[in-house]
Amino acid sequence: MKQELEKYFDRLWPICRSITGNGLRESFHILQELIPLQLEEIPSGTPVFDWEIPDEWNINDAYILAPDGSRICEFRKNNLHVVNYSMPIDREMEYDELVKYIYTLPKQPDTIPYITSYYKRNWGFCMPHALFSKLPQKGKYKVHIDSSLQKGSLTYGHLVLPGETDEEILFSTYLCHPSMANNELSGPLALAFLYKELAKLPKRKYTYRFVVAPETIGVIAYLAKYGTAIGKKIRAGYVLTCCGNEAPFVYKRSKQGISIADKAAEHVLRYGSTPFSIIDFAIGGSDERQYCSPGFNWPVGSLTRSMYRTYPEYHTSLDNKSFISFEALEKTIETYFNIARALEMNERYTNKIPYCEPQLGKRNMYPGEAGWIKAGDHLYNLLHFLSFADGSIDLIDISEKRSKSIFDFEAVIRECKDKGLI
Amino acid sequence: MKQELEKYFDRLWPICRSITGNGLRESFHILQELIPLQLEEIPSGTPVFDWEIPDEWNINDAYILAPDGSRICEFRKNNLHVVNYSMPIDREMEYDELVKYIYTLPKQPDTIPYITSYYKRNWGFCMPHALFSKLPQKGKYKVHIDSSLQKGSLTYGHLVLPGETDEEILFSTYLCHPSMANNELSGPLALAFLYKELAKLPKRKYTYRFVVAPETIGVIAYLAKYGTAIGKKIRAGYVLTCCGNEAPFVYKRSKQGISIADKAAEHVLRYGSTPFSIIDFAIGGSDERQYCSPGFNWPVGSLTRSMYRTYPEYHTSLDNKSFISFEALEKTIETYFNIARALEMNERYTNKIPYCEPQLGKRNMYPGEAGWIKAGDHLYNLLHFLSFADGSIDLIDISEKRSKSIFDFEAVIRECKDKGLI
Amino acid sequence: MKQELEKYFDRLWPICRSITGNGLRESFHILQELIPLQLEEIPSGTPVFDWEIPDEWNINDAYILAPDGSRICEFRKNNLHVVNYSMPIDREMEYDELVKYIYTLPKQPDTIPYITSYYKRNWGFCMPHALFSKLPQKGKYKVHIDSSLQKGSLTYGHLVLPGETDEEILFSTYLCHPSMANNELSGPLALAFLYKELAKLPKRKYTYRFVVAPETIGVIAYLAKYGTAIGKKIRAGYVLTCCGNEAPFVYKRSKQGISIADKAAEHVLRYGSTPFSIIDFAIGGSDERQYCSPGFNWPVGSLTRSMYRTYPEYHTSLDNKSFISFEALEKTIETYFNIARALEMNERYTNKIPYCEPQLGKRNMYPGEAGWIKAGDHLYNLLHFLSFADGSIDLIDISEKRSKSIFDFEAVIRECKDKGLI
Repeated sequence: MKQELEKYFDRLWPICRSITGNGLRESFHILQELIPLQLEEIPSGTPVFDWEIPDEWNINDAYILAPDGSRICEFRKNNLHVVNYSMPIDREMEYDELVKYIYTLPKQPDTIPYITSYYKRNWGFCMPHALFSKLPQKGKYKVHIDSSLQKGSLTYGHLVLPGETDEEILFSTYLCHPSMANNELSGPLALAFLYKELAKLPKRKYTYRFVVAPETIGVIAYLAKYGTAIGKKIRAGYVLTCCGNEAPFVYKRSKQGISIADKAAEHVLRYGSTPFSIIDFAIGGSDERQYCSPGFNWPVGSLTRSMYRTYPEYHTSLDNKSFISFEALEKTIETYFNIARALEMNERYTNKIPYCEPQLGKRNMYPGEAGWIKAGDHLYNLLHFLSFADGSIDLIDISEKRSKSIFDFEAVIRECKDKGLI
Repeated sequence: MKQELEKYFDRLWPICRSITGNGLRESFHILQELIPLQLEEIPSGTPVFDWEIPDEWNINDAYILAPDGSRICEFRKNNLHVVNYSMPIDREMEYDELVKYIYTLPKQPDTIPYITSYYKRNWGFCMPHALFSKLPQKGKYKVHIDSSLQKGSLTYGHLVLPGETDEEILFSTYLCHPSMANNELSGPLALAFLYKELAKLPKRKYTYRFVVAPETIGVIAYLAKYGTAIGKKIRAGYVLTCCGNEAPFVYKRSKQGISIADKAAEHVLRYGSTPFSIIDFAIGGSDERQYCSPGFNWPVGSLTRSMYRTYPEYHTSLDNKSFISFEALEKTIETYFNIARALEMNERYTNKIPYCEPQLGKRNMYPGEAGWIKAGDHLYNLLHFLSFADGSIDLIDISEKRSKSIFDFEAVIRECKDKGLI
Repeated sequence: MKQELEKYFDRLWPICRSITGNGLRESFHILQELIPLQLEEIPSGTPVFDWEIPDEWNINDAYILAPDGSRICEFRKNNLHVVNYSMPIDREMEYDELVKYIYTLPKQPDTIPYITSYYKRNWGFCMPHALFSKLPQKGKYKVHIDSSLQKGSLTYGHLVLPGETDEEILFSTYLCHPSMANNELSGPLALAFLYKELAKLPKRKYTYRFVVAPETIGVIAYLAKYGTAIGKKIRAGYVLTCCGNEAPFVYKRSKQGISIADKAAEHVLRYGSTPFSIIDFAIGGSDERQYCSPGFNWPVGSLTRSMYRTYPEYHTSLDNKSFISFEALEKTIETYFNIARALEMNERYTNKIPYCEPQLGKRNMYPGEAGWIKAGDHLYNLLHFLSFADGSIDLIDISEKRSKSIFDFEAVIRECKDKGLI
């Protein structure tokens, strides 16, 4: 999987995405090779809850000509150089005017910051502070942004992978950042490859919904159209973001805090092999802010690695390919897949022989004369399961009462089904 | 405030108070300069629940004449020398008889203990053990107590400070101890000055009830008259006692243990600057014993500093002005005031734009292009509040989910009200 | 009690018990000298829930004649030498065949293991590995087991000790192991002597049910006959097993985990003097597996010392008289008795003077002028009890709120009853 992840990463990386526009559409088309997302276009000006779809932004080129004629802040070298959603401009100006439109990070002087101005018409350039501080303060600068900002539409994609019931598990990620790795491409790549694994399953209890949309406004548009209808069916959901580097996992709980989404994710982490921490829902996140807003309050959490705003490379040119690891990303996908598997397995089972223990011997389920002494873990798992399977608690609870992973009970469940005990 | 506190302390200090009598009335009249308490007189013999108002006690003078003619245990030098509620007596006796009526503290030999005998007719003197052990055991002693114990009345005072609703916050303290500082005067002084602060507020959601009464019997009398009527309206209450020295705060929970009285007090302490500890309700306290008795069980806690029975100066002549600090007392008053403020602010707010986040930009509530990066704590507080304000939890809960004080949300609440968001 | 315990231990020790048979009956007859158990015989072939009563097993003798004519594995020297429930056999065989029927513990080479084969027809011998490894591998061996396995019956005993109500406390133990001490005889001895103590009580609120049955199949047979009828009446129950050695107590909770059985046992341990630990219900235990099976799920826990499967002597010839202590066993019986006493005392009491505190002085319940200062623990216990006795919580809760044992409140309860306060 690693090679495939890297191949798609390399193709998606150079594209200048935003919350609307052709870079976004081009990225969707590449993702469609992996997951057959249905795309929808929402026209500029459409009201979506308290918001409105903005004009569409496209950009061809941007740079600054320095007084000595050299080009700086070249968009074609790094699309972070231009403030995302910059209005077009093409004129000369003095240094003193220019500096009002330059963004740098004085504490990370070799780094280009990532800046946007979606809802306030503006323009600007981003550059390393080290270069900025060497710019001559005399002479004419020419700024050139060949962009357009006009009526168009916002694009999002979604896909429903059906299961035996119409109860849904949601996986959501965003697509809208230009060239950044952990805080952009790790999310859609994880979602697309997770889809591939789930699609391979011979049967699924749950229906799976995949949403890829520009952050915030895209998900708000999606919820404005589908939120009410989906709400009744959602059993658990996760926002995939910032999940591609080698850092320990961080699971951020849904606002409900004790939902089955949280229970399954925390169980899988607790009995998995990767270090992790768990934090409560907090504002200052990604699209769980919309999914968990008071009117919806869906059971949507988020499993990340280096989380937004917690690492110095965040929202800068340092959040690039060398910051992430395709092995780590693969492990993230595997962990999300295990969460889905845990949700699939998790039920309230009922032992059909409730009065005293079933006699295992006559069913060839007992290991012989030495009995308990030689009995391995399997017999204990079996008896433990039969004792607690009274329909009042689910398999995750039963597993944790034995300090075991739900996956340790797969053989027991299969055997009990075969023998007609559940 | 400190100077005023000290001035009133100095005036109240020398008065010989008891659970009835003119010393008590005189103290009330001084307090009325600060808080317009309405006084009520309950006649001796009045049944109050399981109790009966005792005869009224007054005292002019008391002393012992030693065999050598010297005066000891002079009431006019320290009113602790006489057992509170001593019957009158004026006769000679031998040492062997006298010693049955002398109380000392052998382990604190230079200290006068504080002893009462309200409900069993008796008389006695209290003195430092060091002096007692030097008394000559031969010769005649003359004991003189010029007191009276006869039909009269018990005095208490109360005041209702109205608010927008008739839901009430109760502040109660006792007045009945002679010259002691932490365990007597800290309570009524804190209550009186707390009243002054609350009365200054331009508006109050709650109605505030102030009760000053002799401990136990006074509050029992008060509850016998008003308890049933008040009970329905009480939302929170506090007993002010032992709150004047430099020790860390101790908050003793109401018997309910999880009442809003406890929640508000613990929240204010947790996010305040003074060290504190929290203990569960326990018998062996002050008037919360009556307020929390099974028939009432009101949400009444108590914020103290060096608590009754936990410090060696308790109930002795060492609990005097040098034991307390007017700065500490002022901090206590401020903390009680903050508890009231927290109760006033605490509500279940409901975000009027429940589906997805409100768009802050169009309301000029968003800090500009750099967005999250430059956003300070205020933006996070605002989004956090809007996300959790679904009417299901109160503002203290919302604040604690962000590990913040409720007071950190004052600006947010004001802004949201101004913008019509709540 | 210790001498009596030892006397009965010595008489029960040599008998070869099993889940059926005359050794079991003989053991019951000895126990009947201590507790008048009613015995019942359930015929072989009777279906009991998912199980069936097996044929009855009896044995007279067993041994192996070695090639040199010496006798080894002599049943009459140690009844563990023969696999419990061995079919009769009497023939010669080569070493290579014999070894398939020999059980040893290579890691405990001087120890005889305890092996059974109740439900699979088989035969076998158990011996120390050190002896086994010296057996000549050439020459004829003669194996001799003079046993019978035929239609008969399974025996169990039970007794109901009536109380004022028909709510029941269950004490259950098993009888089925041959010569082993902690994991067999500690249980029935503790139960029999506990019965004697409870029978002496002048009155009992609860009815006590004592069950002595072969482990698993015996209790399944008992429950098949009586389970439904008893179920409604059981308030608490305990399985007495592995409770005779000097190890700290281990209390294993009922599957409910928060039942009054658990609460009383944990309270008594917490305020007792013997070290203890508490573990949650887990499979791999004794008859609580049946009592707590999904269909019953009774509040049945188990107080043990060195628990089954946790000590190396378990199920071997080392679990003998020198492994246990009659002092420890007596302490176990006392602790079970205290649990019963706690259950008897535990009620929701209601203070008849609910508004404010009762005046103790007029009832001669108050210690005099010094009041609180000289008041001992008794006054505090009394006031604490009266404050919390509002009918909403039980006496164990009230005691624990004061970090005291329920037994510390015996005098208070008696005094309040005498004075008509409850």
